[in-house]
Amino acid sequence: MGGDFAPTETVAGAVMAREELGIEVVLVGDETVIKRELASQKASGFEIIDAPEVIAMGEEGAWAAKAHPRSSLMMGAEYVREGNGQALVSAGNTGAAMAASFLSWGRIRRIKRPAIAVVLPPLDTPKILIDAGANAESRPEHLKQFALMGAAYYRIITGKKDVRVGLLNIGSEEGKGNELTRESYPLLRSERKINFVGNVEGRDITNPDVDVIVTDGFTGNIVLKTIEGTASFITGLILRALGEMDKEKLVPVLPALVKVKDQLDYEEAGGALLLGVRGVCVIAHGGSKARAIKSAIRVAAEAVRGDLPGKIEKLLVKG
Amino acid sequence: MGGDFAPTETVAGAVMAREELGIEVVLVGDETVIKRELASQKASGFEIIDAPEVIAMGEEGAWAAKAHPRSSLMMGAEYVREGNGQALVSAGNTGAAMAASFLSWGRIRRIKRPAIAVVLPPLDTPKILIDAGANAESRPEHLKQFALMGAAYYRIITGKKDVRVGLLNIGSEEGKGNELTRESYPLLRSERKINFVGNVEGRDITNPDVDVIVTDGFTGNIVLKTIEGTASFITGLILRALGEMDKEKLVPVLPALVKVKDQLDYEEAGGALLLGVRGVCVIAHGGSKARAIKSAIRVAAEAVRGDLPGKIEKLLVKG
Repeated sequence: MGGDFAPTETVAGAVMAREELGIEVVLVGDETVIKRELASQKASGFEIIDAPEVIAMGEEGAWAAKAHPRSSLMMGAEYVREGNGQALVSAGNTGAAMAASFLSWGRIRRIKRPAIAVVLPPLDTPKILIDAGANAESRPEHLKQFALMGAAYYRIITGKKDVRVGLLNIGSEEGKGNELTRESYPLLRSERKINFVGNVEGRDITNPDVDVIVTDGFTGNIVLKTIEGTASFITGLILRALGEMDKEKLVPVLPALVKVKDQLDYEEAGGALLLGVRGVCVIAHGGSKARAIKSAIRVAAEAVRGDLPGKIEKLLVKG
Repeated sequence: MGGDFAPTETVAGAVMAREELGIEVVLVGDETVIKRELASQKASGFEIIDAPEVIAMGEEGAWAAKAHPRSSLMMGAEYVREGNGQALVSAGNTGAAMAASFLSWGRIRRIKRPAIAVVLPPLDTPKILIDAGANAESRPEHLKQFALMGAAYYRIITGKKDVRVGLLNIGSEEGKGNELTRESYPLLRSERKINFVGNVEGRDITNPDVDVIVTDGFTGNIVLKTIEGTASFITGLILRALGEMDKEKLVPVLPALVKVKDQLDYEEAGGALLLGVRGVCVIAHGGSKARAIKSAIRVAAEAVRGDLPGKIEKLLVKG
């Protein structure tokens, strides 16, 4: 029920995921609405969990999840906790999705703070940003755990063993930055389970020499939205410049420009993973259409198959 | 002497500023090197201040400025302090340029922390980001002063009276964010000298409904470099996609793409202004070529003509 285009696009994405990826999807939400939507899309055979309550986009997440135990988010998380499902995917209220997962599943042992990991649009290889917004305030020990979780996730999606972790900062030398980054640097350097490559800067979001970029959730959220804003700004500039041209001159270059647009498209990226909880929760962009929902379901399935929560627990607990 | 392409591009930029903008430029640096450079560019008639010491890009700014009183930055700042020049422009070490201005000129009365203001590349109207990196750590009262200084600067460059100021945050509602932004929000709202429009997010760097975006220097520096990284990433995607095409299909769209490239070019933006010191200091990008240096000199001249330090003092002191 969550997201700007629910239930139409959400249901359509579930149908795509089942048909194209062979993933079984259970729909959680207002049963009447979902049935009507399935009928109008001529789809059938989906299990539906009726969840009569709704959490709005503006509600404070933790409060809303507790106040609405029969919301689609809480009922979906409970369904997973009971072992009926393996992952929760939502395009709804991010804070509420975090709270529902956390309340229902609990944290992985020794994890102090769950964090959101996003895969940045890749030029050649993917790169992960963590925390992209789960925690407005973080401490150095949290950043160390974000680094370990991010590296485990990166290994699962790429197969790479020697994952390189960088600390997002305002200069490359040790000693640069604010109190948080200055104190996190030695902690990260002395953590033998990661390959810490030192500080990285804002422009390193495209640097092939780092795989996982660690930051606090405040900075990470702003970086993510700045990337989005810059990309739409540049797209706007290009559209305006091309719009002033003769249409026939444009035709030959359209395939190349469409390709770039697709590479920039968050609909292919598939949403953010909440790491540190005892289960798989994927938070899709609020503006997700069917293809983005399908991608988010794919990301969830990959995390389940790779046993991401188990791998993170092993890294953190057994080392 | 500062920047990746000094002295060739720095001197060439000074020549361009004099010829194209009619601004008198004094060159501060190693006299022998500058004279040789002027000769090879067939330029003459520049006043030269011999500054035998050099501050490297990696040096800690405040320390370096104090340790090198005969560096081009310190001698340039002193030349301005003595009333011989009206502004300092440098593409060298940012921290050292800040320290040189601060040590030589002092702060404007009541200003607690100078801050760096940059003009973001505009789609329709310019937008200012402040602080873009002068302070790694900030307090709410600093952010309030950044807002006042940013609004004064915006008014000078655009003539706009009712400048709209937003607080960079991770959500639009009051109460969102980290400790700094939560405490800054009511301070900004109650400041009657600015038109505070509330929280803005990372993607609002292109939102036409806000003119000045206020943030701490850590976040601001990362936002600025993220914009730079994203722009070069997208440019890379476009070049790669077009590189795979027949060259003749490309020719008709080249003018439009070159136009976009020019709009994204920081060489036109002209560098960042250090606000809060008793003088005009423009910090150009370290990778500045001649055109960027010329733009930085233009920005400095505009700030001098608009009496930016005087206007800021008036706003802060007299109200």
